[in-house]
Amino acid sequence: MDRFHVVLLAGGSGTRFWPHSRHDNPKQFLALGGKDPLLVSTWKRVRRLAPETRIWVVAPDSHKARIRKLLPGLKRGNLIVEPSGRDTAPAIALACATVQARDATAVVGVFPTDHVIGDVPKFTAAVHRAVDVAQQGSLVCLGIRPDRAATGFGYLKCATVPQGGGATVVAKFVEKPDPARARRFVKSGRYLWNGGMFVWRAARFLEEMDRTAPRIRRAVAAHLAGERGAWERATRLSVDYAVMEQATDVQVVPLDAGWDDLGSWDAAGRLRSKDPHARSRILLDSEGSVVFAGEKMVAVVGVPGVAVVDSGDALLVVSRARTEQVKLVVETLKKRRRKDLL
Amino acid sequence: MDRFHVVLLAGGSGTRFWPHSRHDNPKQFLALGGKDPLLVSTWKRVRRLAPETRIWVVAPDSHKARIRKLLPGLKRGNLIVEPSGRDTAPAIALACATVQARDATAVVGVFPTDHVIGDVPKFTAAVHRAVDVAQQGSLVCLGIRPDRAATGFGYLKCATVPQGGGATVVAKFVEKPDPARARRFVKSGRYLWNGGMFVWRAARFLEEMDRTAPRIRRAVAAHLAGERGAWERATRLSVDYAVMEQATDVQVVPLDAGWDDLGSWDAAGRLRSKDPHARSRILLDSEGSVVFAGEKMVAVVGVPGVAVVDSGDALLVVSRARTEQVKLVVETLKKRRRKDLL
Repeated sequence: MDRFHVVLLAGGSGTRFWPHSRHDNPKQFLALGGKDPLLVSTWKRVRRLAPETRIWVVAPDSHKARIRKLLPGLKRGNLIVEPSGRDTAPAIALACATVQARDATAVVGVFPTDHVIGDVPKFTAAVHRAVDVAQQGSLVCLGIRPDRAATGFGYLKCATVPQGGGATVVAKFVEKPDPARARRFVKSGRYLWNGGMFVWRAARFLEEMDRTAPRIRRAVAAHLAGERGAWERATRLSVDYAVMEQATDVQVVPLDAGWDDLGSWDAAGRLRSKDPHARSRILLDSEGSVVFAGEKMVAVVGVPGVAVVDSGDALLVVSRARTEQVKLVVETLKKRRRKDLL
Repeated sequence: MDRFHVVLLAGGSGTRFWPHSRHDNPKQFLALGGKDPLLVSTWKRVRRLAPETRIWVVAPDSHKARIRKLLPGLKRGNLIVEPSGRDTAPAIALACATVQARDATAVVGVFPTDHVIGDVPKFTAAVHRAVDVAQQGSLVCLGIRPDRAATGFGYLKCATVPQGGGATVVAKFVEKPDPARARRFVKSGRYLWNGGMFVWRAARFLEEMDRTAPRIRRAVAAHLAGERGAWERATRLSVDYAVMEQATDVQVVPLDAGWDDLGSWDAAGRLRSKDPHARSRILLDSEGSVVFAGEKMVAVVGVPGVAVVDSGDALLVVSRARTEQVKLVVETLKKRRRKDLL
């Protein structure tokens, strides 16, 4: 693991946790899974994998101050600024090229910073396995064992049913399926969720990108060479689409470590073991309702199955079965030009 | 109407509108029916019945400053302070004795200040009729024509089915009935709701009280004579129980003027024609839900039939079918010693 570097992607700006998440306060800065902001719990998790000198964070300039404050251990030169958000392919290319410039033989693990993982030792073991495989030259995904027929994730089709924790060849990347397909996938045992976590040699990834996404690769190289405006020529694409779906020798290491992408207030309610502000709650005949409102007194009477979220300047009451529709609220606020609430 | 005085009862301290209603901010100070606080809309309504010199307000000392601010027209000597809240019988006795001292032949109309009346001309006409009858010596109730088999009100049983707007003799005061009885009452046409609005000659009422509630009468007289502590000897009773149920020659004038006692957040939602802060609301698939939260942005997604009430320091989400349970929330807050929220 001496060559292993961690790249944390902290550029996200989700809208699914409105009213807590805002343009300048995206999900990775929220303490949704426990007492720490998700970015901080991610940092603590990956510190078991590499020393601070080999942990990097990619983020926009606007998040810099916040990140430095939350992660005092982050080394000065290890915060990589993306001039603008252009999805994951340019961000990861920028990070891999930057890491490779410091260590030509680096193996890089790429991780989102807005997920939760319940079982850290299992996660650590899976990454170790992925690093072993990546050192042989494969591009390695961490594939999450599905526990339900989710339609909100991409799936990785394995060439053979993955057994235990060993690596398997990825036969195909499959985009978000409909419910019937998702059920077939889960039943077959051959499909894993694509959680956006990858391990590879930086040099190997960049070579693959030269072939599959040369435009992005050139834009990133020019940006690193100091050419103004070069970054904006990088195509706005996900790494799955720009590289992984077309790459050769892609393997997957199964991950069975209580992963959750915390995609909604419903998920946040499900994962929270208890409300840290229970003394400021009165719930009567409101089974399955959850409150995210800090110290504020919140009473819920006869309203089961809702999430109540208060951010001081805005309030959301949403059926937990409908939390994906929070984005419609955000769209409405955009139409009403309520920048103060976005 | 030259002898007609209005007495407004402003001492109430309800808990049904928590979190907006508080110990020092009871229902009559809330703008539940429209843009004005209920006390102010009551004042505007009775100004059509009497000049400012003949409108009186009974309230505890703690409400004085607030009332003076809300009612700049209230004459200095016309604010009658009740030393402590002892229900309506002592308060009304105090007011009638005070008014009688100014005008021995006064006819007094007693009105709560936390109700709404949709049709003010009809209300005015009914009071005029009641004054005519009271001047002949009767104790007159305004009886509301029921539009449903409500179980939350007392009923007045009329000696004959009341026709049009004319007065009828009250045969009996009936306490809050169970649903089956309430349905029979409404079907019979002989029952009206007791809305706590009365008209009588002050002298006649006080004479009746000498007979039915001498203890209260004596305590009030001693209080007015300046005896310290006398007020606390007045029995804590409603005027219905202390006087009306035992009185002779009680008549009722029917009132059919869109009266509502605004007993809950559900009623407040029903009566509000539109949300004055509609621009700060986003309701998606939430039919029948209402929001009371001032300028604050509130989004409700997939949660029909609820009342959402925000007061800054506290938040209530309640099924509109369960708004009477708000008192359980207040009881819980008492147990938790959250005086800051009561």
